[in-house]
Amino acid sequence: MRTHGAMKVGVLTGGGDCPGLNAVIRAVVRKGVQRYGHEFVGFRDGWRGVLDDHRTVRLGIDSVRGILPRGGTVLGSSRTNPLSDGADGVRRMQATMARHGVEALIVIGGEDTLGVAARLWGEYGINCVGVPKTIDNDLSATDYTFGFDTAVSIATEAIDRLHTTAESHMRVLVVEVMGRHSGWIALHSGLAGGANVILVPERPFDVEQVCGWITSRFTSSYAPIVVVAEGAVPKDGDMVLKDGTRDAFGHVRLSGVGEWLAGVVEKRTGKEARTTVLGHVQRGGTPSAFDRWLATRFGLHAIDAVHERDYGTMVALRGTDIVRVPIGEATATLKTVPAQLYAEAEVFFG
Amino acid sequence: MRTHGAMKVGVLTGGGDCPGLNAVIRAVVRKGVQRYGHEFVGFRDGWRGVLDDHRTVRLGIDSVRGILPRGGTVLGSSRTNPLSDGADGVRRMQATMARHGVEALIVIGGEDTLGVAARLWGEYGINCVGVPKTIDNDLSATDYTFGFDTAVSIATEAIDRLHTTAESHMRVLVVEVMGRHSGWIALHSGLAGGANVILVPERPFDVEQVCGWITSRFTSSYAPIVVVAEGAVPKDGDMVLKDGTRDAFGHVRLSGVGEWLAGVVEKRTGKEARTTVLGHVQRGGTPSAFDRWLATRFGLHAIDAVHERDYGTMVALRGTDIVRVPIGEATATLKTVPAQLYAEAEVFFG
Amino acid sequence: MRTHGAMKVGVLTGGGDCPGLNAVIRAVVRKGVQRYGHEFVGFRDGWRGVLDDHRTVRLGIDSVRGILPRGGTVLGSSRTNPLSDGADGVRRMQATMARHGVEALIVIGGEDTLGVAARLWGEYGINCVGVPKTIDNDLSATDYTFGFDTAVSIATEAIDRLHTTAESHMRVLVVEVMGRHSGWIALHSGLAGGANVILVPERPFDVEQVCGWITSRFTSSYAPIVVVAEGAVPKDGDMVLKDGTRDAFGHVRLSGVGEWLAGVVEKRTGKEARTTVLGHVQRGGTPSAFDRWLATRFGLHAIDAVHERDYGTMVALRGTDIVRVPIGEATATLKTVPAQLYAEAEVFFG
Amino acid sequence: MRTHGAMKVGVLTGGGDCPGLNAVIRAVVRKGVQRYGHEFVGFRDGWRGVLDDHRTVRLGIDSVRGILPRGGTVLGSSRTNPLSDGADGVRRMQATMARHGVEALIVIGGEDTLGVAARLWGEYGINCVGVPKTIDNDLSATDYTFGFDTAVSIATEAIDRLHTTAESHMRVLVVEVMGRHSGWIALHSGLAGGANVILVPERPFDVEQVCGWITSRFTSSYAPIVVVAEGAVPKDGDMVLKDGTRDAFGHVRLSGVGEWLAGVVEKRTGKEARTTVLGHVQRGGTPSAFDRWLATRFGLHAIDAVHERDYGTMVALRGTDIVRVPIGEATATLKTVPAQLYAEAEVFFG
Repeated sequence: MRTHGAMKVGVLTGGGDCPGLNAVIRAVVRKGVQRYGHEFVGFRDGWRGVLDDHRTVRLGIDSVRGILPRGGTVLGSSRTNPLSDGADGVRRMQATMARHGVEALIVIGGEDTLGVAARLWGEYGINCVGVPKTIDNDLSATDYTFGFDTAVSIATEAIDRLHTTAESHMRVLVVEVMGRHSGWIALHSGLAGGANVILVPERPFDVEQVCGWITSRFTSSYAPIVVVAEGAVPKDGDMVLKDGTRDAFGHVRLSGVGEWLAGVVEKRTGKEARTTVLGHVQRGGTPSAFDRWLATRFGLHAIDAVHERDYGTMVALRGTDIVRVPIGEATATLKTVPAQLYAEAEVFFG
Repeated sequence: MRTHGAMKVGVLTGGGDCPGLNAVIRAVVRKGVQRYGHEFVGFRDGWRGVLDDHRTVRLGIDSVRGILPRGGTVLGSSRTNPLSDGADGVRRMQATMARHGVEALIVIGGEDTLGVAARLWGEYGINCVGVPKTIDNDLSATDYTFGFDTAVSIATEAIDRLHTTAESHMRVLVVEVMGRHSGWIALHSGLAGGANVILVPERPFDVEQVCGWITSRFTSSYAPIVVVAEGAVPKDGDMVLKDGTRDAFGHVRLSGVGEWLAGVVEKRTGKEARTTVLGHVQRGGTPSAFDRWLATRFGLHAIDAVHERDYGTMVALRGTDIVRVPIGEATATLKTVPAQLYAEAEVFFG
Repeated sequence: MRTHGAMKVGVLTGGGDCPGLNAVIRAVVRKGVQRYGHEFVGFRDGWRGVLDDHRTVRLGIDSVRGILPRGGTVLGSSRTNPLSDGADGVRRMQATMARHGVEALIVIGGEDTLGVAARLWGEYGINCVGVPKTIDNDLSATDYTFGFDTAVSIATEAIDRLHTTAESHMRVLVVEVMGRHSGWIALHSGLAGGANVILVPERPFDVEQVCGWITSRFTSSYAPIVVVAEGAVPKDGDMVLKDGTRDAFGHVRLSGVGEWLAGVVEKRTGKEARTTVLGHVQRGGTPSAFDRWLATRFGLHAIDAVHERDYGTMVALRGTDIVRVPIGEATATLKTVPAQLYAEAEVFFG
Repeated sequence: MRTHGAMKVGVLTGGGDCPGLNAVIRAVVRKGVQRYGHEFVGFRDGWRGVLDDHRTVRLGIDSVRGILPRGGTVLGSSRTNPLSDGADGVRRMQATMARHGVEALIVIGGEDTLGVAARLWGEYGINCVGVPKTIDNDLSATDYTFGFDTAVSIATEAIDRLHTTAESHMRVLVVEVMGRHSGWIALHSGLAGGANVILVPERPFDVEQVCGWITSRFTSSYAPIVVVAEGAVPKDGDMVLKDGTRDAFGHVRLSGVGEWLAGVVEKRTGKEARTTVLGHVQRGGTPSAFDRWLATRFGLHAIDAVHERDYGTMVALRGTDIVRVPIGEATATLKTVPAQLYAEAEVFFG
C-alpha cells in the first residue's frame, strides 16, 4: 500500500450541506498527511472553486483541527455545474489543477456533484474518487449516507415534543420533514417518533384515508401526529391547486404540503390542526455520533483509494463494511422507499 | 402551619400547554397528600371540567408518578371561558365543586385562565390560588414563568443548527419563533444563539434597516440569521398586504411574518433566504431543568397557600424567592420587552 | 401469511436493560393484535417470570401506548437462569405456559438469555423466537443491536463536553465507557468524539505508548482525551495490582481502569488527569432514533416469525434488511473489534 | 455615557472553567469595540498571563467570532495566585499592563480570582471590574452565575436516564455531582430529576435515614435515585474512614462519597447499588441558553462599567436585572443552600 509516492490531492464539497462533511475532510487530511505524506488543496464552493480557482487553500493538519463535530463545510458549497459550459469548463478545471499540481480530486457530494465526477473521470480522464453525501439517503450505491441519521434524529426529537402538545389540546399536529423525491426521513422519523400517519413521495396519499386514520385516532382518545415528506402529494392533484395559495411574490403556487394538509384536515375532520415545518434545522449543526463515524470512515477509505490510484471509484457502506464501487453507480438510480418497507410501517397508522 | 385540617382541593390547567404543567400538579399532590393529608380532585380540560364535571378524577400519589419530566398536562387543557354565560356558569361550577366536596381550586394558567380565577374569587367568593403559566413570559407579576426556558432552549438549539447551513451556502436564514404580543422568546434565543437580527412585536421593524444589517453581515463574509417573533410587524403595514398570500381556505391573509420577510429580503438584497417555523415544537416535550425546578417550587408554594387558606393569591418568582401576590395582579399588565433591553441586544445586529 | 390462526404469545426481556426494549414489545403487540389477532402475555423479570408466574400480565394495545420512547423495560428484567435447576426449571416454565395457554415465547435478550432460549428450543421443544439485545454490540449474528447507538451517542456527547474543559486547563481527561469484553462503544464514541487515545479489551495496552501519545498531544499545544473501555487492561497485568486499591468492603481490588489510568498518567507525564465514569447513564433513558427504528423493526419481524411458526429463529440486521437466523447462532461467538478496524482508528492517536 | 474616551482594556479568565466564559469575552469585545471604540488585550491562563505576559493577544471582533456557543475559555485559565509573592507580583502585573498600555482589567472568575481583583483594586489601585463565575452557584453577591444552569441541565439529563435503568433492575442508582462546599447542583438537579434522596454538604447525612428512604421507596415497588454532592459527608465521620480505600498512589483516602455510599447502602439494605460520577462532563461543552444569555449580559454590563470608569465593581444578577456591587462583596460569604430550601425538597424523599 505504501509503494506509491506522495502527491497533491484536491478536495471539494458540492450540493446541499450535510452534517458530516467536515468529518470527511478531517479524516482525509489526517490520514493523508500522517500516514501517506500527501499534501492537500481545498477548493471552495464545490466545482466553482475548481473552475475559478477562487480562495483556494492549503489543507494541513491544523486546518482540520476541531472541525469534526461542526456542521456545514469549511470549504463552502454550491450547486455550480462545471459541465454546463461543456469542454471549456473542463479545460479551466484542468488548468486549476495543473496550477496547484493537483493529481486527483476527492469529490464529496450528492447525485449531481458525483454525476459530474463520473463524467470527468469517464470522459476526460480527470482522477476522481467520490464520497457520497445526501441528507435524503436516496443514493442506491450505499446502505446509508452521513447526514441522514442526524436529520432523522432531529425530526424524531421534534415529533417527541409534539406528542405532548397534541395530547394536551387534542389537536392534529402535522410535521413536514425533508424529502423531495424520497420518503426516508419521513419513514424513519415517523416510525421512531411513533407517528400515526406517515406520507412519502413514493406513494401519493388518499386524503380520505388520511382523515380516516386521524378520526380513528381521536376515537380512542388520542391525538394524531402526521409526518409528511415535503415531496409527498395527494392522489388527486387538482385538489391541491384548488386550495393553492399565492406566494410572497404574488404567483399562485402550492403552499407547503404540510400547511396545505393541515388546512384540508381541519375542514374535513372538524379538528384543529397545526403545522411545523422543520426546514433547514434538519441539515444543520453537529452531526450525530453515527454520522461522524460513517463520515470519518468514508474519509479514511477515500484517501486509501486515492493513495492506491484507484480512481473512478466511490466509497460506500455495505452492512458494516466500507467498500468501493464505480463512481457512476451512485447516480444510476434513485433509492426510494420500497413498497414493502412502507407497508411494514402502516400497522402503526390510525 | 399544620393547624388547618385536611380538605379536598381541585386542580385544573387552562390555556395553551406549556412544559412544566405536570411538574406543578405533581408537587401540589405530593406535598398536599404527604405533608398535609389533603385530597385532590383533577378537573379536565381547564374550566370546562369544572363546568361540565366531565371525566373528573381523583388525584393521588400514584396518579402523579413519573409525570415530572413529561410535557403537556395529564389533566388536558382548553380555552373555555366559564364566565361567558355569566352567573349560570358560576352556578354550575359551584355545583360541581359541591358535588365533589371541593373547598378550593388550584388554577394553573395564563392571563385568561387566571383572569377568570381572579373574578371567581373577587366577585363570587370561590376559593382560588393561582399558578402563573405562559410560554411567552409576558406576565408582569413574576420574573419568569415555567415553559419559557424550555422554549428558549429549543429555539436556541435550532439557531445553532442553522448557523452552519447559513455559512455553508451564504444564505439568509429566517427563524420564526413564538411570541404574538411580546418578544421575549425571540430576544432570549436570538441573543443566546448569536442571531444577527432580532425582531419583536414591541418594536415595528424597518425593512430597509433589516436589509442593511443583512447586507453588512455578508460584507464581512458571514451569513446572517434573523430571529423574528411571530407577532413582529414591519413599520409600513401596507407593505405586508401588498405581498399578502391566499390561505388554504382561499382567503387573502398575511402569510407568517417569517415566510413573508424571507421573500422581501430575497427581492431586496438579491441573497437567497430560507425560513424555519418552529411552531409547537417550542411548547412540547420534556421541560428544561430550570422549568422543572420552577414549576415544582410553584406547586409546593401553591399548596402551602391553600393549606393556609390564603385564597385569592398567586405564586410568583422574585429573584430566587417564591412569593405570593394578589391573583388579579397577574393579569393587570402585559410584560413586554423594555426598549432598553432591546437596545442592549442591538450591539450584535449586522 | 394469514393462513395461521390466532394464538397466545408470551413475551419476556432478560439481562441488562437497554434502550429499545419497550419499542420491541410495542411493535410485537401492535402488529400481533392488529394484524394477526394474537393475544399476549407479559412475563416479568426475564426467565424468573416464566419460572415463578409472578405478576404475569396481559399485554394489549393499551399496555404498550406511549412506551416507544421510554428507556428500560416495562416487563422488568433479571439475570435468572432457569436451567440452573435443570429439568425442574423447564417443567415449571412449561407449567406456567400451559396455565396461560401460551404457545410460544418471544425472548428479548443478550447472550445468556438467548442461550437459554436456544436450549429450550433445541433440547425441550419449547417454541421460542429470539430478539438480540446488547448494549455492547458484541453479538456476532447481527450487524448491530439496539441500545448500542444510544450508548455511543451519550458517550460521544460526554466526550464533546470534555474537550473544552481539557483545553481550558491543559489536562488529560480519561473517560471510562462500557464494554467489559469488547470495545465497540469505546471505538465508536472515541472516533466520533475525536479522542486522542482509544483503549479496548481486545488489545492490551502499553502504558508507555499511551503516555507517549498523551505527551505528543501536549507538544502540539492541545489537551488529550483518552477513551477507555471498562474491560481494557494494560499489557503488564502486575502493574495494576501494584496500584490496586481497597474497595468499600475492605478487599484489595483493581479500581476502575479509568481511575487507575489517570493516576498512572499523572505520575508518568507530570500532567494533571481527571476521570469521568459514565456508568449506567449509557444504558438508560430514551433510545436514539436509530435504536427505536431497529427495535421496532425487530419487533415487527419477530411476531411475523411467530405467526409463521418459524420457531428456533432469531431476527437479525444485515445491511438494511431484517433476516432470520438460527437462535443458537447469536451465542456462538463473541463479536469483538477486529484488529484492522482498530488500526483504522489509530491514525487519530496522539 | 460616551463622554469617556477610548482606552485599552485587559481581559482574563481565572479558576475552573465554566460554560459561558467565551460568551462574556465576546460580549465585552463586541460592545467595547463597536460602541465605545476601546481596544482589548487578552491575558492567558488567568493571573499568570498578567504576571508573565505570556502569549498575550490582541482581541478584536474577529477573535471572538463563533465563540459564543463554545465551552471552555479561549484565553485559558489557571489557579495562579499573583499575590502569593506579595508586592513583587503586583509590580510585575503593573509592568505588563504598562507595557501594553492597559488601563483597566475585566476579571472573570470565582471566589479566588475575584478576591485577588478586590485586593488589587483596594490595596494597589489597579483598575478592575469583576464578572462572577462559578459552576457551583455559591457566590452570595448574585442570584445566579453562568455555568450553573448548564451543570444542572447535564446532571438532570443523566438522572432522567438513570431512572429507567433503576426501575428495570430494581437497583439503587447513586449519582455524584459537583459541589464541594455547597449543594446547589445536587439540590436543583435532584429536584428537577425527581431524585428520591438528595445529599448536600450543608447538612451531614444520617446513613440510617438514607437507607430508610431507600427501603421505603422499594416498598412501593419503585427503585430509588440518590443524588449526592461530592462534598456531602455522613454525620459519623469515622464510618467513612473505616471503609476508606487506598488510592492510585497508595495512600489511604476516602473514596468518592458516591462510590462509598453505594457500598454502604448495598451492605445495609441488601439491594444492589450502582454509582455514576459525572465529573467534568458537568462543566464542559456548550452553555445552556440561559447561561449564554446571562454571560452575554454580564459582558455587556462589565464593559459599560469599565467605560464609565466605575472600577472596583462587579456585575451581578438580581431578579432579571444586572446590577453593580462592590467587587469585594463577591467573596464575602459563601452562598450555601438554606435549611428551609432543603426542607422544601424533603417532601420528595423516600
